[in-house]
Amino acid sequence: MITAAILVIGNEILSGRTKDTNINFIAKRLSGLGIELLEVRVIPDNEGQIIEAVNALRAAYTYVFTTGGIGATHDDITAATIAKAFQVDLIENSMALAILQEYYQERFNETRRRMALMPEGANLLDNPVSTAPAFQMENVFCLAGMPSVMHGMFEALIPQLETTEPFYQSMVTCNLAEGVIGERLGQIQTEYPTVSIGSYPFYHLPANIGVNLVVRGKDKKAISEATQEITKMVEGFGGILSPS
Amino acid sequence: MITAAILVIGNEILSGRTKDTNINFIAKRLSGLGIELLEVRVIPDNEGQIIEAVNALRAAYTYVFTTGGIGATHDDITAATIAKAFQVDLIENSMALAILQEYYQERFNETRRRMALMPEGANLLDNPVSTAPAFQMENVFCLAGMPSVMHGMFEALIPQLETTEPFYQSMVTCNLAEGVIGERLGQIQTEYPTVSIGSYPFYHLPANIGVNLVVRGKDKKAISEATQEITKMVEGFGGILSPS
Repeated sequence: MITAAILVIGNEILSGRTKDTNINFIAKRLSGLGIELLEVRVIPDNEGQIIEAVNALRAAYTYVFTTGGIGATHDDITAATIAKAFQVDLIENSMALAILQEYYQERFNETRRRMALMPEGANLLDNPVSTAPAFQMENVFCLAGMPSVMHGMFEALIPQLETTEPFYQSMVTCNLAEGVIGERLGQIQTEYPTVSIGSYPFYHLPANIGVNLVVRGKDKKAISEATQEITKMVEGFGGILSPS
Repeated sequence: MITAAILVIGNEILSGRTKDTNINFIAKRLSGLGIELLEVRVIPDNEGQIIEAVNALRAAYTYVFTTGGIGATHDDITAATIAKAFQVDLIENSMALAILQEYYQERFNETRRRMALMPEGANLLDNPVSTAPAFQMENVFCLAGMPSVMHGMFEALIPQLETTEPFYQSMVTCNLAEGVIGERLGQIQTEYPTVSIGSYPFYHLPANIGVNLVVRGKDKKAISEATQEITKMVEGFGGILSPS
């Protein structure tokens, strides 16, 4: 099993000022690559918390993707902190430096030079969108926080990932309550242990109440069969199937 | 300092099927209550991961808010797992049972009865929206995953929280690059250590490039002064202030 975690580094998510969208983007892409996303953490721009989280996650999962903190201002501490987490020096990456100098020309300065600093042993990652340098340190990929830039970096690094059979999923939506279907749904989950069946109720009074039943996994045959059983279950309880 | 963590329990967020909105809702409310949100974790409906995360977070922060997994189906394992994390029994809460029986009347059944199970020592929380029972176990508040239901539960539990001076923030938006302002902005952060200054660039080629500079904290005077310094800095670099 190939697994992953996401580490969102950014005060702006924890303060509520910014709604994160990077988690969902990476989650969807990993699902299609067959990589199981097993944990997400969101932490502030705080050295101690970043070191602790990076070291916990890189030991537990195949890949770790961090977002945020790779820009040119005082609150961009990802590179320096990842170096500390790996107990290596922070050094200037010559390729990153060349890219920044070439792009900024006479506007190149010491503040921008700071973006070329990376942990010793890190590899520069492609950034098809802007010039901010992203990097890979062993199984940790450090990406931008700005969604449009992060998307480009993520697409560009995919060839470096070990991938496998994608996850597939089906969904049945019906107008029944969890309390009605719960027991039989649990039996279907037991009958199809290779898939994961999730029950997600919606509750918009007065009339739009029901549940989305999601079957997910890599075993297409089991997904298909479990979905048929769920459909039969809904009909058996007199429920109405509907598009969600 | 009053601190908090959020634990989002749900496969549907990690698979990418659902975009979480609960984190941002709780983050904003905590900020207004003066409670510092210092960590968020998203984990699957997995007993081992829930126990590990709940025990780590409840030891580290004043409050922990969990979302998800309190419904009536097989994948709702929050109550049973929180009981294991606290090493107490899972018992039927008589008030929750009475509410469920009263609401469902002749539709009450064993599946719905399961929702009345809580860790021994837990307190039932108000649910002004639906009947799903939320509960509090020491400093851990276990809420619904469905946003409309969670919102109601969260508003209802606020009187139980210790609160303090709210966080305030100001924002200056300008058309300058981080590489231009970075050095001076870092100086301003050093001059105003009681506030946190964040730099959030936006990058929409060809013309809409700039940065949002956010000053946040509880020291209103320092926020005001640091914001004025930032405004002066933007003017000094020939930048244009703009609404974001």
